[in-house]
Amino acid sequence: MNGAQSLFKAFVEAGLDTCFANPGTSEMQLVYEMGLTNDMRPVLCLQENTVTGAADGYARMAGKPALTLLHVGSGFANGIANLHNAGRANTPVVNVVGANATYHQHRFPEHELINGRITDLARVVSHWTKEAKSASDLGVLGAMAARYARIGSGKICTVVAPTNCHWDPSAGTPVAEDPISTPRVSAETVKEAADRLQSGRKTALLLGGSAISNDGLELVGRIAAKTGAQLMAETAPSRLARGADRIQVPTVPYLLDFALQYFKESGIKQVLLIGTLNPVATFAYQGMPVEKVPEDCEVWTFATNDHNVSTALSDLAGAVGAGDETLARVQRVEPKPPTGGLTVEAVGQSVCLLMPDDTILVDEAITATGQLFAETTHSARHDYILATSGGAIGNGLPVALGASIACPDRKVVLLQGDGSAMYTNQALWSMARESCDVTVVLLKNDSYGVLNLELARVREGEPTDKMLSMLKIDRPSIDWVRLAESMGVSAVSAKTAEEFHTHLENAMHEKGPKLIEAEMVQDLQPAVDLIRKKRR
Amino acid sequence: MNGAQSLFKAFVEAGLDTCFANPGTSEMQLVYEMGLTNDMRPVLCLQENTVTGAADGYARMAGKPALTLLHVGSGFANGIANLHNAGRANTPVVNVVGANATYHQHRFPEHELINGRITDLARVVSHWTKEAKSASDLGVLGAMAARYARIGSGKICTVVAPTNCHWDPSAGTPVAEDPISTPRVSAETVKEAADRLQSGRKTALLLGGSAISNDGLELVGRIAAKTGAQLMAETAPSRLARGADRIQVPTVPYLLDFALQYFKESGIKQVLLIGTLNPVATFAYQGMPVEKVPEDCEVWTFATNDHNVSTALSDLAGAVGAGDETLARVQRVEPKPPTGGLTVEAVGQSVCLLMPDDTILVDEAITATGQLFAETTHSARHDYILATSGGAIGNGLPVALGASIACPDRKVVLLQGDGSAMYTNQALWSMARESCDVTVVLLKNDSYGVLNLELARVREGEPTDKMLSMLKIDRPSIDWVRLAESMGVSAVSAKTAEEFHTHLENAMHEKGPKLIEAEMVQDLQPAVDLIRKKRR
Repeated sequence: MNGAQSLFKAFVEAGLDTCFANPGTSEMQLVYEMGLTNDMRPVLCLQENTVTGAADGYARMAGKPALTLLHVGSGFANGIANLHNAGRANTPVVNVVGANATYHQHRFPEHELINGRITDLARVVSHWTKEAKSASDLGVLGAMAARYARIGSGKICTVVAPTNCHWDPSAGTPVAEDPISTPRVSAETVKEAADRLQSGRKTALLLGGSAISNDGLELVGRIAAKTGAQLMAETAPSRLARGADRIQVPTVPYLLDFALQYFKESGIKQVLLIGTLNPVATFAYQGMPVEKVPEDCEVWTFATNDHNVSTALSDLAGAVGAGDETLARVQRVEPKPPTGGLTVEAVGQSVCLLMPDDTILVDEAITATGQLFAETTHSARHDYILATSGGAIGNGLPVALGASIACPDRKVVLLQGDGSAMYTNQALWSMARESCDVTVVLLKNDSYGVLNLELARVREGEPTDKMLSMLKIDRPSIDWVRLAESMGVSAVSAKTAEEFHTHLENAMHEKGPKLIEAEMVQDLQPAVDLIRKKRR
Repeated sequence: MNGAQSLFKAFVEAGLDTCFANPGTSEMQLVYEMGLTNDMRPVLCLQENTVTGAADGYARMAGKPALTLLHVGSGFANGIANLHNAGRANTPVVNVVGANATYHQHRFPEHELINGRITDLARVVSHWTKEAKSASDLGVLGAMAARYARIGSGKICTVVAPTNCHWDPSAGTPVAEDPISTPRVSAETVKEAADRLQSGRKTALLLGGSAISNDGLELVGRIAAKTGAQLMAETAPSRLARGADRIQVPTVPYLLDFALQYFKESGIKQVLLIGTLNPVATFAYQGMPVEKVPEDCEVWTFATNDHNVSTALSDLAGAVGAGDETLARVQRVEPKPPTGGLTVEAVGQSVCLLMPDDTILVDEAITATGQLFAETTHSARHDYILATSGGAIGNGLPVALGASIACPDRKVVLLQGDGSAMYTNQALWSMARESCDVTVVLLKNDSYGVLNLELARVREGEPTDKMLSMLKIDRPSIDWVRLAESMGVSAVSAKTAEEFHTHLENAMHEKGPKLIEAEMVQDLQPAVDLIRKKRR
């Protein structure tokens, strides 16, 4: 057995069966192994940020790591942004990055990085990075990566694999047997959480990770019913069980101003973090606070995504004596089919009305996210994914692709901004290739819309045309129908709410990838004016 | 003056006047400064690998650094692959990467990388990386970056700029006055080179960097005429003066087998490196050598790209007593317009016949590169750029974009493989936006063609369909006409040599961006069979 065979065997034995890939010369040995059996499904993607974003989407839905195959330092680098999103979403991903032979790297052949090594890049977005030194290392490192990726909610694990480690014979060293296990929240911590919930202070449970899965929400719903705690979800939920008959959870607003107001109005004096981090502003702004939680409210961590959150919630439910009683569940409310201008509200209403049970709703709508989230509150039962967990745009199309590969029998609806979609438009090709049942709602406003708000924060005075030209993508306006069709995805365009509704209705009744270009009526000026007013 | 103003002033004073950008929140202060004056031309690109690749193409032609504006760690990461290409091409580039406020980073807001900092990513592909600690740092670091980028042939210099360093007042610290200068090759080294050239051993001058500019070639042509040395250029020339009336220089073959044969047949016993590195195999292969130069041939470095290569060549010409006599110059030979199947040869003949004087010929043709290079030997005078200097695919379209921005009055012809083009197809949009005079010859073979050769090296036996499915991009076949049109670039398709010739002729007589999809007849099977045969 050579190194490549031992590595492939380790992954198959660890239960990995899907590989998102853009292989090159240094990965040919693994392409060969993958091509010999039916143990692993390869999904070819035409740029690496689609590879890693699809792995993220896959793992969020499959609940187990995807494998990625990336070509040397530059191929890994292309995938960093979406690995960053995956890492911030606590998604399990196992990467294999090919490298030049150990004995050739020092000659500085063209793929060698000018000032460092692949591992230097890899470790910045990986929780765990190892480079094989010999063929016998490879299988061991593969097994370790597949195991360590499953710690807590999930980890990013990267194996750097020089070519000679693939082709040299492997000693087949067995992997140590003790599994690395996910730590349990201690009894003392559970007791403290119970005491805090019973302290009489107005308390919120701020939830993320598996606490907002359906099982997690069932547990926290009972805890909240018993203790009077309020429920909130993190601003960018990695995967939220949502819609009819689910326990309802609002998210902490993205914009700092709104988040501060939200906490102030709630009167919350204590926040317990469960599977999420202390909510802070995405960016600091001159003269503004950076924490979303006010100073007079205590933030305390009960369980992180490195813990077994499900067990922690069960233990806490027991400790507070939660019974069967739970919070009110979401009622299905069907809005009327929208008419007139194609506003964000209209898109939200159509999506709310039309998406079927168990849809996977992926969101990279950016400036439209807040309102679309609100409009889809009373939808059918679905899973909601905010794709850009780490703020790196270009994760929507890949995550939708990966989610569809994980759940081929479920409809995926992607709410996608145009500027972000351009980053990884290559994902459309893989959707066509794999016949993914994804409907892309392409929200076209010909702009990096959110940056108009950000520019307004810089200084007073009207922005110049030259400034605005750096935020607009309207010259030329991108023809999304042609772009989708060029990669084999059928597409239509809508200019009114009625047209959009009809197109979406058709898409919900068909299988396969489809793109609906929604030419939006979206006025960001009121938000810009609000920011300007506050500056004064 | 605040930090952003001082940074912008430093760049303008250093002569930087073009900024390739994809800004986000943390770059708004610089967008604001850029928008206030006409000192800097911003070129918006819709993904960062186009930003950095365009900066590379710009600087190769402008002979001075472009500025890039990149958004935090993920935005920088998206641009790493083409910065790597730029670094391996010794192109000067100055990057500014926005970061969160110094006082907010430790709270781990969403853009913070899970296991490191932006500088950790930046330094791997930068020769010089600094993060500002205060507003007063920013202008100083900007001036240093612009200066250091010009050392030798060029350096990649990256300034990481936290937002509060933009908006805080700057003390306006002056920059130290001594310029960092490019070292001159010593008199002793020049003498040794002259002695080696006059030693009687059969000698080659292996050239790269500014040694293959027109001025460089004029010098080496005279040195070679005097000493009998043979001229060769590096495998992937960063910018080669070529065509009618230029000194002719062949390149060292890309494929190891051919390179070994080339040196063996040449009888060369000594190679002097001038502005390039010792030529080695891109990848090591099992049981094969890794050096392109045979063991019985000495390799000696005369001048690197950290030296002033032009001065070194002048000094060497003097030391060997080179006169006005020079090597034979390239004769213009006009091939007949090709007919029949659209082969690589046919494309090369049309390009050779039709491209006008002073064309910038950019090459990311991958499997077609060798033959296209040969077919265009007797073209009109042109500059030839092999885009993927670091082996990272996806640099062709961006480099063509940047070269056209640098030289708006020259025609740019890009020879572009389809698999590589998909990596950075977003560059088409910027070409349309900036009305670049670029003709993209899109060589469509629906495949990562070169990987068929690489797969054949793995083991004996026929590849399975499953293996080949990871190398093919034919399902669906990409419609490049629609893809180009979706981004505002007019496009046509050609299936025969005659059609292609007509389309190219039209494009050469028009201004503005155009894409010609060339549906290639390209049979890689003989090459695959050759590799298989050698394995046995």
